[in-house]
Amino acid sequence: MSVNIPVSANPRVVIVGAGFAGLELAKALKAQPVQVVLVDKNNYHTFQPLLYQVATAGLEPDSITYPIREIFRSQKNFIFRMAEVLEVRAADRCVVTSIGEIAYDHLVIATGAKSAYFGLSDFEERALSMKTVPEAVELRNIILENFERAVLTTDLVRRDSLMTFVIIGGGPTGVELAGALGELKKVVLPHDHPELDLTKMMIYLVDMESRLLKTMSPAASRSAEQFLRKHGVDVWLGSRVRSYDGQMIVFADGKSLVTSNVIWTAGVTGAVLPGLPPEVLSAGRIRTDSFSRVAGCSNIFAIGDVAAVVTEDTPHGHPMLAPVAIQQAKLLAVNLARLLKGNSELKSFVYRDMGVMATVGRHEAVADLSFGKFQGPLAWFLWAALHLMTLVGFRNRLVALVNWTWSYFRYDSGLRLIIRAKDRCAVVKSSQ
Amino acid sequence: MSVNIPVSANPRVVIVGAGFAGLELAKALKAQPVQVVLVDKNNYHTFQPLLYQVATAGLEPDSITYPIREIFRSQKNFIFRMAEVLEVRAADRCVVTSIGEIAYDHLVIATGAKSAYFGLSDFEERALSMKTVPEAVELRNIILENFERAVLTTDLVRRDSLMTFVIIGGGPTGVELAGALGELKKVVLPHDHPELDLTKMMIYLVDMESRLLKTMSPAASRSAEQFLRKHGVDVWLGSRVRSYDGQMIVFADGKSLVTSNVIWTAGVTGAVLPGLPPEVLSAGRIRTDSFSRVAGCSNIFAIGDVAAVVTEDTPHGHPMLAPVAIQQAKLLAVNLARLLKGNSELKSFVYRDMGVMATVGRHEAVADLSFGKFQGPLAWFLWAALHLMTLVGFRNRLVALVNWTWSYFRYDSGLRLIIRAKDRCAVVKSSQ
Repeated sequence: MSVNIPVSANPRVVIVGAGFAGLELAKALKAQPVQVVLVDKNNYHTFQPLLYQVATAGLEPDSITYPIREIFRSQKNFIFRMAEVLEVRAADRCVVTSIGEIAYDHLVIATGAKSAYFGLSDFEERALSMKTVPEAVELRNIILENFERAVLTTDLVRRDSLMTFVIIGGGPTGVELAGALGELKKVVLPHDHPELDLTKMMIYLVDMESRLLKTMSPAASRSAEQFLRKHGVDVWLGSRVRSYDGQMIVFADGKSLVTSNVIWTAGVTGAVLPGLPPEVLSAGRIRTDSFSRVAGCSNIFAIGDVAAVVTEDTPHGHPMLAPVAIQQAKLLAVNLARLLKGNSELKSFVYRDMGVMATVGRHEAVADLSFGKFQGPLAWFLWAALHLMTLVGFRNRLVALVNWTWSYFRYDSGLRLIIRAKDRCAVVKSSQ
Repeated sequence: MSVNIPVSANPRVVIVGAGFAGLELAKALKAQPVQVVLVDKNNYHTFQPLLYQVATAGLEPDSITYPIREIFRSQKNFIFRMAEVLEVRAADRCVVTSIGEIAYDHLVIATGAKSAYFGLSDFEERALSMKTVPEAVELRNIILENFERAVLTTDLVRRDSLMTFVIIGGGPTGVELAGALGELKKVVLPHDHPELDLTKMMIYLVDMESRLLKTMSPAASRSAEQFLRKHGVDVWLGSRVRSYDGQMIVFADGKSLVTSNVIWTAGVTGAVLPGLPPEVLSAGRIRTDSFSRVAGCSNIFAIGDVAAVVTEDTPHGHPMLAPVAIQQAKLLAVNLARLLKGNSELKSFVYRDMGVMATVGRHEAVADLSFGKFQGPLAWFLWAALHLMTLVGFRNRLVALVNWTWSYFRYDSGLRLIIRAKDRCAVVKSSQ
C-alpha cells in the first residue's frame, strides 16, 4: 500500500532520518527542482549532544527537540511523513515503512547510530542507554526514583546499590554524563535528600582502554580524568566488563561492583536498514564512496553516522560526529544538483576537521581544536557558545540559556521531575 | 510494614497530596513544633490551571511542574515520601501506602479532584481527560498524531473524524481548551500541514446547560460564547451526551458527531481515599465542619477540592478552586497551631471570594472579580499576570514568560512534539 504523497513533476528524493545529516540535506535542497520527502519515526529532531543534560535533569526535553514541520514550514518542496522505515526494496525503488510504501527516485539513508553491545547481551537487556529523548527521560526518572527508594529502605546494601552509578564507556558521552552526575552529587542532591548521606553515592566511569577520550589528545584525556576524580567520579581504566545480572557487574579481571544503575555508552554502530546487500556493510556501517553513493546500488546514498566513506585515506570512514554529518549532507546536496542537471562531475568529500570537545562538569571542558588544545573553563565557554549557536531555533536557544544561567547561579537544576506517560493511552488508541 | 521515617519528638502531621492545599499547608507549618510528612504519588507539584496549555502544545510540561523536594529544601521539619496512599486506617491512626504504612498523629487529606463520568462508562473508557501532566502530554501526542494520520489517509470520512475535536463540558477548563484548539487551527496548524485543508478541522464544545461557564456571570457566559464562535468553535448548548463507541458520539436528542477526539471536562468529584466511613461523604467529597475536621473522625482533616465545608451558608461546600484550597490550608495551619498549644478555640473558615477567570484564546479572557467584571484583552492581561505570579518558583515563571512571549509574537507554539516514554523501562525495573 502506497503512502499518500502528492504527485510531483520533479524527481523525488526520499531522506530517511531527521538527525543532523538528514535535516541539513533537506534544507540544502530547498531551491532544487526535487520533491524532498523526509521520513522519521518521530515528528521532531533531537539535538543529541545535550541528551546527557536531559538525563541528569539539567535541561528540559523540549529544549533539545524541534518539530520537523516547524523547521520546514516555509520550504515549498518539502514533505514530511512520520513513519518508521522497515526495509529498502532497491529493485522496486521504494522503501517499506510502518505506514506503507514510499517510492523514490533517489534514496538517502541518514538513520544515524544505535548502541552496540559487542555480544554482551546482559548489558543489552539491562543497561540504560541515552540515544533518544525517551531514553534520556527514562534515565532521569530512574535516577530520581532510585533516590526515592534509597530514602525508604533500611537495607544498607540495597541503599548503596541504589546510590551507585556505573557508566560503561569513557568516550565524550560517558565523560559528560559522569561529570553531570558528579555535579548532582555534590551540589544538588544533598539539598533534596537531607536524610541521605550523599557521600555514599558512588559514580564509576569504566573503560577497557588505558585512557579516557581515546579519540582525543593525551592532554585532553589527562585533564578529563583529573577533573572527574575531582568531581567525585571513580575512574577505572583498562577494565573490561563481562556480565551484569541486574545487581552486580563482573569484570574480566574478576572485580565486581554492586549497582542498580548501569548506563551503557561504550559503543555505537550504524542504524542500518534491512534490505541492503550485505556486501555494502563495513563494521556495522554502510560503505559509500567519496560521493556518498552506496556501492552497487543505483540512486541510493548514505550520510552521517550510519555511513562510512571508505577510501585509501579513510579506510574506516570518518568519526561519528555532527560536523561530519553536516558537511556530508551539504556536499551531497551539491552533487545531487549536478546529477539532476546531467552533470556527472561530482565533488569528493573531504572532511574539514575543526576539532572535538567534551564537557566535564559545570565549569570545565576539554577541547582539541584546529587552532589549539584547551582544557578548563575557557574550553567550557567555547563548548557552551557552540552548542547554543547550533541549537535549532531561537526560542530553544533562549530557553536553554535561561535554564543554564539559572542553574549556574543557583547551583541547582530544578528539573528533578519524574514524569511517566500514562497507561491509559492504550485504551484510547485501540478504539480508533 | 512501616515506611522508614525518622523518629521525631514532635507530633506528626501527615498530609496526603501535594496540590495547592497540601503544599500551602506544609509551608504554613514551617515554624510549628510538628513533623510534616507530605505524601504524593508524584515527586512534583502540578500547576493545574495551565494543563490545557501543555495539552495544546503552548507550554512545556516542565514549566508547570515543580519538584517537591526543591520547594521544601530549606524547611527543616519537612519530610517527603513519594507513594500512593491506598487506604486510611483511622482505628490504627495510620495510612496504608504503596510503600508501606505511615502512622500519623494528625492526618490531612488533600488529594484533590478526579474526573467524574456520571455513569457514562463509554466516556470513562474512551474519552481523554486532562487532570494530570501525563494526561495532558498524552492529549497533546494524540492531537498531533491524529493530524499526521489525517495527512496519510485517503478516506475522507476518516480524515474528517481525525480532524474533529469534541470537548464535553463548558466550564472554564472546556472553554480554555476549546479556545486553545481554535488558536491552533487558525494560526499554527495550517503552516505545519500545508497538505491539509484546515478549514475542515472542526471543534465542538458541548454542554447540557443553557450557557457556558454556568458558575460565572451571564456577561461572562455571553462573551465566552461569542469569542469561541469567532475562534472557529462550534458551541452546542443544552446538549447532553449519551454514548461514544470510539467513532461516533450520540446525544440524548438523537444528534450525533463522528470524531476520533473526545475530551471530557464535564465533571469532577473528590479523589476520596478508601477507609473513611461512608457517612462522611457528600456528593463525592469529604464532608467537614468549618474547621476542616472530618465528621466523626478524630484528628483527620480534609482541605481543598476533595473537601466540602458543609454549613448552613454553604450546604454544598465551596467551589473547587485554587483560592479556596489555599485559604483553607492557611487557616488549618493556624488552627493546628492552636490545637498543639492546647487551645481549643478555633477559627471558622470564611471564603474570601476574589472572583473567577477563564481565558478564551490568545488575547481574550473573561473575569468576574470582586471589583468588577471584565471581558476581552484587559481580562487576559489580568489572567496572565496572576498565573505568572502564582507559578511556583522564579525559574518556571521566567521560562513560561519566554515561551508565551515568543508564542505571542511569532504566532506559533513551537512545542508540537510527540514524545512517548520508551517501553524498555519495564525490563530494567524488574531486575532491581
